[in-house]
Amino acid sequence: MPHLQHNGKKIYYEVHGEGQPLVILNGIMMSTLSWAMFLPELTKHNQVVLLDFFDQGQSDKMASDYKHDIQIEVVQAVIDELDLEKVHLFGISYGGVVALQFALKYGNSVDKLVLFNTAAWTSPWLSDIGVGWKKAALLGDADLFYSVSIPVIYSPNFYTKHITWMNERKTFLKQVFNQTFLTAVARLIESSEGFDIRDQLANIKANTLIVSSDSDFVTPADNQLEIHHAIEESAYLEIKNCGHASMYERPTEFLSVLKGFLASEKVPKIG
Amino acid sequence: MPHLQHNGKKIYYEVHGEGQPLVILNGIMMSTLSWAMFLPELTKHNQVVLLDFFDQGQSDKMASDYKHDIQIEVVQAVIDELDLEKVHLFGISYGGVVALQFALKYGNSVDKLVLFNTAAWTSPWLSDIGVGWKKAALLGDADLFYSVSIPVIYSPNFYTKHITWMNERKTFLKQVFNQTFLTAVARLIESSEGFDIRDQLANIKANTLIVSSDSDFVTPADNQLEIHHAIEESAYLEIKNCGHASMYERPTEFLSVLKGFLASEKVPKIG
Amino acid sequence: MPHLQHNGKKIYYEVHGEGQPLVILNGIMMSTLSWAMFLPELTKHNQVVLLDFFDQGQSDKMASDYKHDIQIEVVQAVIDELDLEKVHLFGISYGGVVALQFALKYGNSVDKLVLFNTAAWTSPWLSDIGVGWKKAALLGDADLFYSVSIPVIYSPNFYTKHITWMNERKTFLKQVFNQTFLTAVARLIESSEGFDIRDQLANIKANTLIVSSDSDFVTPADNQLEIHHAIEESAYLEIKNCGHASMYERPTEFLSVLKGFLASEKVPKIG
Amino acid sequence: MPHLQHNGKKIYYEVHGEGQPLVILNGIMMSTLSWAMFLPELTKHNQVVLLDFFDQGQSDKMASDYKHDIQIEVVQAVIDELDLEKVHLFGISYGGVVALQFALKYGNSVDKLVLFNTAAWTSPWLSDIGVGWKKAALLGDADLFYSVSIPVIYSPNFYTKHITWMNERKTFLKQVFNQTFLTAVARLIESSEGFDIRDQLANIKANTLIVSSDSDFVTPADNQLEIHHAIEESAYLEIKNCGHASMYERPTEFLSVLKGFLASEKVPKIG
Repeated sequence: MPHLQHNGKKIYYEVHGEGQPLVILNGIMMSTLSWAMFLPELTKHNQVVLLDFFDQGQSDKMASDYKHDIQIEVVQAVIDELDLEKVHLFGISYGGVVALQFALKYGNSVDKLVLFNTAAWTSPWLSDIGVGWKKAALLGDADLFYSVSIPVIYSPNFYTKHITWMNERKTFLKQVFNQTFLTAVARLIESSEGFDIRDQLANIKANTLIVSSDSDFVTPADNQLEIHHAIEESAYLEIKNCGHASMYERPTEFLSVLKGFLASEKVPKIG
Repeated sequence: MPHLQHNGKKIYYEVHGEGQPLVILNGIMMSTLSWAMFLPELTKHNQVVLLDFFDQGQSDKMASDYKHDIQIEVVQAVIDELDLEKVHLFGISYGGVVALQFALKYGNSVDKLVLFNTAAWTSPWLSDIGVGWKKAALLGDADLFYSVSIPVIYSPNFYTKHITWMNERKTFLKQVFNQTFLTAVARLIESSEGFDIRDQLANIKANTLIVSSDSDFVTPADNQLEIHHAIEESAYLEIKNCGHASMYERPTEFLSVLKGFLASEKVPKIG
Repeated sequence: MPHLQHNGKKIYYEVHGEGQPLVILNGIMMSTLSWAMFLPELTKHNQVVLLDFFDQGQSDKMASDYKHDIQIEVVQAVIDELDLEKVHLFGISYGGVVALQFALKYGNSVDKLVLFNTAAWTSPWLSDIGVGWKKAALLGDADLFYSVSIPVIYSPNFYTKHITWMNERKTFLKQVFNQTFLTAVARLIESSEGFDIRDQLANIKANTLIVSSDSDFVTPADNQLEIHHAIEESAYLEIKNCGHASMYERPTEFLSVLKGFLASEKVPKIG
Repeated sequence: MPHLQHNGKKIYYEVHGEGQPLVILNGIMMSTLSWAMFLPELTKHNQVVLLDFFDQGQSDKMASDYKHDIQIEVVQAVIDELDLEKVHLFGISYGGVVALQFALKYGNSVDKLVLFNTAAWTSPWLSDIGVGWKKAALLGDADLFYSVSIPVIYSPNFYTKHITWMNERKTFLKQVFNQTFLTAVARLIESSEGFDIRDQLANIKANTLIVSSDSDFVTPADNQLEIHHAIEESAYLEIKNCGHASMYERPTEFLSVLKGFLASEKVPKIG
């Protein structure tokens, strides 16, 4: 299993397939493992680079709090290690937030930028919701943490329709949510505190696609519209009847939109 | 302060003004006190009856778990005590849920029925969210309970725009959220477990108005649309850019819609 | 039948009931007759003043083209004649457009302002649609004019569900759509050409309610949102699954919202 | 220029590129020429087959009225001629309507089915709008026909923002809209009269993607949702702030979604 050392810490990453590199950035409770079901499709035309942020999956845990900066450098370290010149960058939720900032700092390395369910700032509302998640995580109570953080990231209709799968997942996640995992999640949440790049969005020059879900109750569609309006010529799509965890709720739409955008050149605009 | 005894427990209620009676049923963390700002307007044309459910405000606390039935009888006990023949019944959230069931059991007593941010069932999704609220309440941690239950009942835009007021409210609510209050709230949440009257909605014969908010992340607009489609000839309005606590976010729209519906007879329908 | 002379032309108006005056301004193909079904409810708490604009109903026809100014003076002439000091002003579509401009010019006379399905400008899109309506009207072909102008002002669902009523209405309207009527309508449409008060909206100081319909294909909800955002503290509601002719599609919601807003004082705002 | 004879009439078609065949079906006022700007992208992974329906572009005009059946056979004739076994079928608007019926009749020939801005029936509302378009077309008045049929197929925002391009297009289209063209269009509109396959949709077994636009005022999103709900496992996306002519308004989103869906296999569904 490939990994690299960065500032004395291990970064875990994986490379799959061949073609123009597509770097995939995880949401907060995800890891490289989360993408298994999508790899067969994603590797058809692209080399897929998966990575775990610090405090995620098989990368090292951190000893104390930090901000997004260190995660931006995680991405850069992997790109460096693989000697990639220009990559497509995809992020969802926390991954989108890091992707946005990577595109600002290392714009020359980014070909296309794809953001699902991403916000350009941690609003006071999201911050106060984060306080609850963090407190629940630090209590080390897996049941509580599940109830506080998981139902809300699915749309009510999906969660209800797939309740059997959700209950299996609940059983599984409660095992995952041990003390080590939860204190790491608490630090990841804390790293978003004070984040706000709304006034820098116009500096993003990458060819950008932004995707929202109409029932996203964590980063509501307004957040994605704000990014779309700020990044000139960005494309924008909304998945209806879908929650924050859009790739799990609507895998076909997720793949179609992501793969199609990566595969298309801009056509001359009308008007 | 008027109150009555019912099954050996005190029910607190208030009567304000004169006119056709309007009985107001609270949401889960509300009480008769919550309506103070609206009383001057609501009493202009109606006699307003406020009441606290068991485990709310100045009504007695319960010793153990129960279902909605006992709250339906709280409403009926107050109506009986006041010797009211026909009332307008308004409920928001938990209050709407009780109002729906009251209208099914005591339909003859209900003239107009007005439901804001109400669902006809506790879906598996809402139930699992309720688990988190209950757990947080039973831990007796006011900070945790605030973070888990309050931000989500406001729209992100309102919460953010009015962050100074929200912060004052946070300070105030953390004093309110003592052990007694929180265990009562836990029982109120528990009383909604297993609730499902979706297949009885068509039996509601009252002249009904249903109001939803497009950013209601607790009882999303789909829930209100379901009620609207099941109750024949019901009226339906949506408040845009508004969360679950619609009356606080949009007091003018709240009052206009409620008062206007109570004041209007049906006009012959077209077609 | 009351009327007054203004600049040598007859203005037809009606006064119904008692209370604070409510002046009602018609949409483009409407007249004082259009409000008959709503009068019993509207006169319960207000004195209702109906009027026909020039080129409408029983007011005089114009000999040549004009702009909105003359219709604003029609409203002022009626208010003068009745010696009204302060009125509530309601307008829908064309009536809303005149109401907005009246509120700008004669702000001291306006207490509350209520706008349904109104735009603050004639966009190039609406202007080009107007060209089609005008051409169809000037051809004097009632069938063509019906098909071009009527289906589009209803939501597809309402039109389809009430197709029997729509077909009766088609028969009726084809008699109404004679040469005199249609050339008058053509002038009314022409009077909106070049209209744009978007940059003056912030000067409106009246207590304002704006109502949109989500399936309004003539003045889409975006137009009403623009007005709502520009007029400070204005209230805003949307009627779901409803077209441009909202008062006919959703009479209960129409009356509730209008009556409720007129009957309510502002409550102190939160935050 | 390739063409074939079918029932004594010429069908014009074009074949571009190599790969799995993608057959593209035009909207009512379109032709094979309309796809020029998209060909470089669409031919990257697929063989693209363009064709003109009867009464469109370079295919023969019809002498009298007909129904959709003959257009379904036009598609089949081209597929036969090219000896294609299994094709991806894409249609927009009228093309989508024919595609739906082709997928019902010749399901074995269809791999993936992609429908943009398509309805499963000509509702009374759409039928009455069609009457206006037909009347305007038969009058042979290019100005009238433009005003009646073109602005409404764009979203107000796009039309307004790109008014210079729209005005150039107006000039161009008024030359196109000669008597021959317009009587052909009138027959195309007439061919949709009485169309209703809503109760057959469940028989479509193709892997289907349905795309709607939120500001589609000809075939509103409700129509596409109806198809999505009836075809099991179909994918669904909505383009926000976009009108009926979605491919012109949002070429990047159009290409991304279409290409991505064609390039993706279904991933195993969750739950």
